[in-house]
Amino acid sequence: MNYKKYQKMYHPIPLEDRQWPNNEITHAPIWCSVDLRDGNQALYSPMTTEEKIEFFKFLVKLGFKEIEVGFPAASHTEFEFVRRLIDENLIPDDVTIQVLTQAREHIIKKTVEALKGAKNAIIHLYNSTSTLQREVVFRKSKEEIKQLAVDGAKLVMSLVDGQLDGNIRFEYSPESFTCTEPDYAAEVTNAVLDVFKPSETNKVIVNLPSTIEVATANVYADQIEYMCKHLNNREHLVISVHAHNDRGTGVASSELALLAGADRVEGTIFGNGERTGNTDVITVALNMFCQGIDPELHLENIDEIIEVYEKYNRLPINPRHPYAGEMAYVAFSGSHQDAIKKSMDKFGSSPSNKWANPYLTIDPTDIGRKYEPILINSQSGKGGVSYIMENKYGYTLPKPMLAEFSSLITDMSDEKKTVLTNHEIHQAFKDTYVNVAEPIKTRFYRSTEEDDCTILSATIEKGGKVTSIEGKGNGPLDALCNGLRQFLGQQFEICNYTEHALTRSSNSRAATYIEINDHNHHKTYWGAGVDANINTASIYALISAVNRMLADN
Amino acid sequence: MNYKKYQKMYHPIPLEDRQWPNNEITHAPIWCSVDLRDGNQALYSPMTTEEKIEFFKFLVKLGFKEIEVGFPAASHTEFEFVRRLIDENLIPDDVTIQVLTQAREHIIKKTVEALKGAKNAIIHLYNSTSTLQREVVFRKSKEEIKQLAVDGAKLVMSLVDGQLDGNIRFEYSPESFTCTEPDYAAEVTNAVLDVFKPSETNKVIVNLPSTIEVATANVYADQIEYMCKHLNNREHLVISVHAHNDRGTGVASSELALLAGADRVEGTIFGNGERTGNTDVITVALNMFCQGIDPELHLENIDEIIEVYEKYNRLPINPRHPYAGEMAYVAFSGSHQDAIKKSMDKFGSSPSNKWANPYLTIDPTDIGRKYEPILINSQSGKGGVSYIMENKYGYTLPKPMLAEFSSLITDMSDEKKTVLTNHEIHQAFKDTYVNVAEPIKTRFYRSTEEDDCTILSATIEKGGKVTSIEGKGNGPLDALCNGLRQFLGQQFEICNYTEHALTRSSNSRAATYIEINDHNHHKTYWGAGVDANINTASIYALISAVNRMLADN
Repeated sequence: MNYKKYQKMYHPIPLEDRQWPNNEITHAPIWCSVDLRDGNQALYSPMTTEEKIEFFKFLVKLGFKEIEVGFPAASHTEFEFVRRLIDENLIPDDVTIQVLTQAREHIIKKTVEALKGAKNAIIHLYNSTSTLQREVVFRKSKEEIKQLAVDGAKLVMSLVDGQLDGNIRFEYSPESFTCTEPDYAAEVTNAVLDVFKPSETNKVIVNLPSTIEVATANVYADQIEYMCKHLNNREHLVISVHAHNDRGTGVASSELALLAGADRVEGTIFGNGERTGNTDVITVALNMFCQGIDPELHLENIDEIIEVYEKYNRLPINPRHPYAGEMAYVAFSGSHQDAIKKSMDKFGSSPSNKWANPYLTIDPTDIGRKYEPILINSQSGKGGVSYIMENKYGYTLPKPMLAEFSSLITDMSDEKKTVLTNHEIHQAFKDTYVNVAEPIKTRFYRSTEEDDCTILSATIEKGGKVTSIEGKGNGPLDALCNGLRQFLGQQFEICNYTEHALTRSSNSRAATYIEINDHNHHKTYWGAGVDANINTASIYALISAVNRMLADN
Repeated sequence: MNYKKYQKMYHPIPLEDRQWPNNEITHAPIWCSVDLRDGNQALYSPMTTEEKIEFFKFLVKLGFKEIEVGFPAASHTEFEFVRRLIDENLIPDDVTIQVLTQAREHIIKKTVEALKGAKNAIIHLYNSTSTLQREVVFRKSKEEIKQLAVDGAKLVMSLVDGQLDGNIRFEYSPESFTCTEPDYAAEVTNAVLDVFKPSETNKVIVNLPSTIEVATANVYADQIEYMCKHLNNREHLVISVHAHNDRGTGVASSELALLAGADRVEGTIFGNGERTGNTDVITVALNMFCQGIDPELHLENIDEIIEVYEKYNRLPINPRHPYAGEMAYVAFSGSHQDAIKKSMDKFGSSPSNKWANPYLTIDPTDIGRKYEPILINSQSGKGGVSYIMENKYGYTLPKPMLAEFSSLITDMSDEKKTVLTNHEIHQAFKDTYVNVAEPIKTRFYRSTEEDDCTILSATIEKGGKVTSIEGKGNGPLDALCNGLRQFLGQQFEICNYTEHALTRSSNSRAATYIEINDHNHHKTYWGAGVDANINTASIYALISAVNRMLADN
């Protein structure tokens, strides 16, 4: 590999008497969520305004007191969202919204307009200061870039002054900080601070982003400690970090930066953000929690956080994601299981006990999870059941059906008090869902189609009695539904339907999964059908679901 | 949250004159892959022996010179795998296999038996030394645990002696090292080293695992530096690290450990392993690469590594995974795109140029990727097309079809030289695949089914000429295939078939995707059908595929 083409992208840190490796994290930082700005801008399908509002409410519920909500001058959607938050009184009094802006007059005017009526807001001004950005992108000298930052700060101050009556604070970011000469970064920031005039009542946020991660995490800590020592008026500053994850060390970078003096962490839940993402604040917070530090976020229900994350970001959580991944509390090794059990027996019995466990940093129940000593052949997690059903038997279950089936497997495993084999799992699936023929059995069916109208007639056996039914519809399933509704005198309809071939050939068998909605009892039932004929598979699936409904009624 | 229940799980590090923060990584460590042991044991469906052999060959191809291949005394499968590697001469002369063992007589005997005939092997002995493991799991004193380690080492030495004629080396791990008192960890390890007698020709590997990650990454570095200072015979030791990822800082921990004196890194590709995984060696290696250091691994084709990872581990790579994720080189922000382009224009033109880029740490082409300045509305990646088709229009395309469609979209985007809107993408999909009615159009069809036999008759229009065709089969699709084959005199068959509802109601429309295999030309064609009637949708999908085949011939 042509490694000689690369070089270090950061500048040497002239750090004297380094202190941070002697420090420990003792309390939570000020958390600032940038999910709705940095996170959202890096999505294939960014959130709609309605989705952003829901996401904002959720961030408030998690306990974030500072939330970057967008770049209101960038687009109508961004502007509109900020206005709705303010106009609809969606921002609690103890929550501050933050908006990003560049230092150009019409942009700041628009930003100020967006913030009118806000009780608490942070205006976040940035410009890029790295060697590379100056020389290649902006083609400006150090002096010119500094002047740009100072002029921007002045413009913000003058335009905000008198126009907004809420509590307005300022944040400045020398963007691409990690690739900026440290003395120059301090020089530019001090020049901006001369404009913002930080004081006891006007604390200014200095955000030092690792816009791109270019060094081992200790270098970022050195850079932060250097800045803490070289910025004027340190006691009236809030030092903030915003670490990206290009080298997979975003969490470590933020943590070491806290040792080095940072007061505030910008990041996103589970690390969404440009390219390889931002610092995952959930992980940083839980890392503190399991060392006995109040994380100052409400993380009791991690599954809900995952649900919101996946729903609005349309991104998956990796099975091995710290704390949140579905495999995070799975112990496969027998010796691990043994040691975990012994420790749980000793320390887990009373809530007043301290937690101590050789393989689990956290008691999963504290965040709404369960420890599951899963062996290969017994799966309590959806992932395990899904792997076995798919890889061993070729079934790709629809997600909600998988969830239902997994909890059934968990119950079986609990009851048996031992592991389940793949075969037992497969058998349980077949017994529960596939081609269920009680109380109703189809003995014969015939469907006739002419363009879009299908007539289906079937011979049905129920309790030893044979009846013929007939229905009409826009396909055999619809026709059968109509026939069955009439025959059973019961209201239900298909609310979910998926079908796939079990192996890759038109002569192979098809599997169909159908969920029906029982209107009388407000419940739904899944059924599956397997047959060489795709129509027969569908009909079996429907009959299975109906039979499961009838058995339950 | 009840944070008071937690406490620090590591012991204070009595480190004097700390050196590691002054150091830099200057060369690659010795890499040791533990994919086939630590990684494989933590899978829902572990690899078969055949799969392990393929995986082993791949690790060799990547350039690993030390590969932990299992715990041969643990099971017949593990034993068998080691035997096959040796008996079938699958281990190159410059590659050393490593096996894990506990210190019990019959286990070591079995291990030695497994290694007979191996040219180069490492026997990896471990026992757990942490406070918690000693007190709760083993109920033994410090002295007893140390004796257990020493006795184990003696047993290994005596049983190996004279029985194996290859080059056999030793590795010792004080398991749960990060939760062990540092002075005690050094004491136990030194006692074991007294048995193994490291020398210039018998270098012993001391592996210091972060079996569970319990502290910020700097603490692990302190622990490693402490051990480097307190182990006897340091010059004849290979200090190895094996970091887990419970706090999401496995990569950082291994990197800081290298600063602190470690010579060797154990880990897995993309970080597979127990719970939240091991150190991701690919990320550590590429982190070195993009600082101008030879990674000493062949990572030129990252997509192949991903393919192997996903195939054998049956685990996904997160879209934001460093270097490897499908979103790692996607720039959504216009200002990022602009800066990237300017830097590429300046530095990317000649191979002799150094790389410098404000948002990309690496030139993606060095690992077989492409930088793609993707906007929301134009998607070159499969992920983007998939999101739009699924979230905006409700289509879940089968994977191979998605791949084909994505490359079509990329070509369109290239040709247009601008972004595509969601609508344009949707339109392209419909124009290309859905209900294609040229050259063949079905004007009317009727299918009759009696149990498992279907007769389908259809009126077909081709080139203005109307014909009736009829076919028999085990379902309407099969029947239509037979009818069409006869009518067209062409050999093809269905090799892929998927169907799903476009929205959640039986009255909604179904989408069917069918791939056919053209035997005469050894090519396959996808078609899609959308209709309220699921049978009609299938028939349209088949006709679409056939029409695409005919248009191509």
